[in-house]
Amino acid sequence: MAATATEGPVVVTGGAGAIGAVLVRELLARGHEVRVVDNFSSGREAHLAGLPSGPGRLEVVRADLLRPDDYRSAFRGAVAVWHLAANPDIRLGTERPTIDLEQGTLATFRVLESARAADVPAVAFSSSSVVYGFPTVFPTPEEYGPLLPQSMYGANKLASEGLLSAFAHSYGLRAYIYRFANVIGPFMTHGILFDLFEKLRRDPNRLEVLGDGRQAKSYLRSEDCVGGMLFAFERAREVVNVYNLGSRDRISVREIAEKVVAAHGGRARIEYTGGDRGWVGDIPQQWLSIQRIERLGWRPTLSSAEAIDRTIQELARARGISG
Amino acid sequence: MAATATEGPVVVTGGAGAIGAVLVRELLARGHEVRVVDNFSSGREAHLAGLPSGPGRLEVVRADLLRPDDYRSAFRGAVAVWHLAANPDIRLGTERPTIDLEQGTLATFRVLESARAADVPAVAFSSSSVVYGFPTVFPTPEEYGPLLPQSMYGANKLASEGLLSAFAHSYGLRAYIYRFANVIGPFMTHGILFDLFEKLRRDPNRLEVLGDGRQAKSYLRSEDCVGGMLFAFERAREVVNVYNLGSRDRISVREIAEKVVAAHGGRARIEYTGGDRGWVGDIPQQWLSIQRIERLGWRPTLSSAEAIDRTIQELARARGISG
Repeated sequence: MAATATEGPVVVTGGAGAIGAVLVRELLARGHEVRVVDNFSSGREAHLAGLPSGPGRLEVVRADLLRPDDYRSAFRGAVAVWHLAANPDIRLGTERPTIDLEQGTLATFRVLESARAADVPAVAFSSSSVVYGFPTVFPTPEEYGPLLPQSMYGANKLASEGLLSAFAHSYGLRAYIYRFANVIGPFMTHGILFDLFEKLRRDPNRLEVLGDGRQAKSYLRSEDCVGGMLFAFERAREVVNVYNLGSRDRISVREIAEKVVAAHGGRARIEYTGGDRGWVGDIPQQWLSIQRIERLGWRPTLSSAEAIDRTIQELARARGISG
Repeated sequence: MAATATEGPVVVTGGAGAIGAVLVRELLARGHEVRVVDNFSSGREAHLAGLPSGPGRLEVVRADLLRPDDYRSAFRGAVAVWHLAANPDIRLGTERPTIDLEQGTLATFRVLESARAADVPAVAFSSSSVVYGFPTVFPTPEEYGPLLPQSMYGANKLASEGLLSAFAHSYGLRAYIYRFANVIGPFMTHGILFDLFEKLRRDPNRLEVLGDGRQAKSYLRSEDCVGGMLFAFERAREVVNVYNLGSRDRISVREIAEKVVAAHGGRARIEYTGGDRGWVGDIPQQWLSIQRIERLGWRPTLSSAEAIDRTIQELARARGISG
């Protein structure tokens, strides 16, 4: 039980990101020494503010994952690497396809090489439901194939999964691959709720929503996400362990938009841009089977609607909005 | 029917390799203008000797796929790119993991960028059964998952598949992904038959065979492989088209070794190194379902045993060996 035992430090790449910052808090709460490696391209120092820092607690290394020399020391003696760093913006990857190649596949390769060089026994990776492309089976199980991602972001998540698997089988480390539903919570810097709040801030009377509003997806709070990752990490013992992480249900974009408008007082008019996809690379229907991790004994505490509600409340409170 | 129509040139990367050279011949026979891009790291000029060369027929560009400037002109006006170039040596990739990253994933990315820049409407890619890792379903269908490759070679085949899919969906080209069984035929520079013949050349009395001999796989002649690729290319019309290509049966390593010894006069003693895997990264059991391409109307002409027999005969003849 390398993740929860305290016999050695744990590395979190992208530890200043939205999910990373929640994972770091949970690892610290469980008594771990945590070493964050982040280039702060999308992570924020503020996300780690106030945490117990220094040797034996939290250390933050500002480094680009493509330059292993700059973070080699952080991997030394580590009992696990949680590799969460990535470009979080799927649409940006379509405009500039090298971003996900470099911050996705190549960064993962360097992380795996560094883990191998430092004899780190386990690497966990934040993959995504987007590796399923447009699935035809709902809820989609881990066994679904073929995996035909629609976006550069998805292609590089799939590539990273393959690299984890090959490193695990070739060089004797254990791999954990988590395919996330839409993860929401504190520290967000992108995503549908962030976007909708931004739009209403600019124009409180009109809310443009991408697509026809019928896109429907599972949403998972980042605290649940982190809980599920750690739960499977402590119990699953295959060479490569693949788990979907999502809630048991889904919610439509229309419902989300209406909830956001209600939180803003209910006066904004919702306008749909139309079409079944919100944008190039969008996956309009996403609903993961979580039976595999449920069989391990884990369940999320919140439904998709509850996760959305809580996050809307937090965003509204942080921005001084009262519905 | 871009592949067989003669309305424009066709690019073949790795066209001097074992499968590429067969594809180039078939494309030329069908009246195509063919442009080979090869760095001759494992391809051989001799594989293309005697073919009709010059403008409108076969042009050979010696270039590294990681340097798009060196082959940009070859992509101009092309109606299809057949991307077959790769490191062919799975074991080498385990020793030096950057080889498959560079010659696999990164080369594929550059090829796709170049195809996109030149508005090439279709890209076909030689993937492999190794993307299935150690499958638990036999024969293994295209829908099998999760895809957990065992080798760097397999990881980078999977990564390339994902990149093809993402480019197809994001930028409007059509993608063809072929997952090959073990392809054998003329022009081979590696693989089990090549290895066994080499071993008997060095010591005619003793044949060391990696593993316990019970590894069993499907073998496909490269002429059948090329026929299947072109058949699906002409008929399949999804955005991303994924097809297994193999024979309908399989053959054990023990049977192959005995056939090779018989072709050498039958006197060599076969010695198995033991263990269920021949080497790290080996897939001991491989048997692809080819129902999907059979439903399109294609079938291989030879069984695995027939493909092995024919290739052994050719190798023996070329080396002046008479059993």
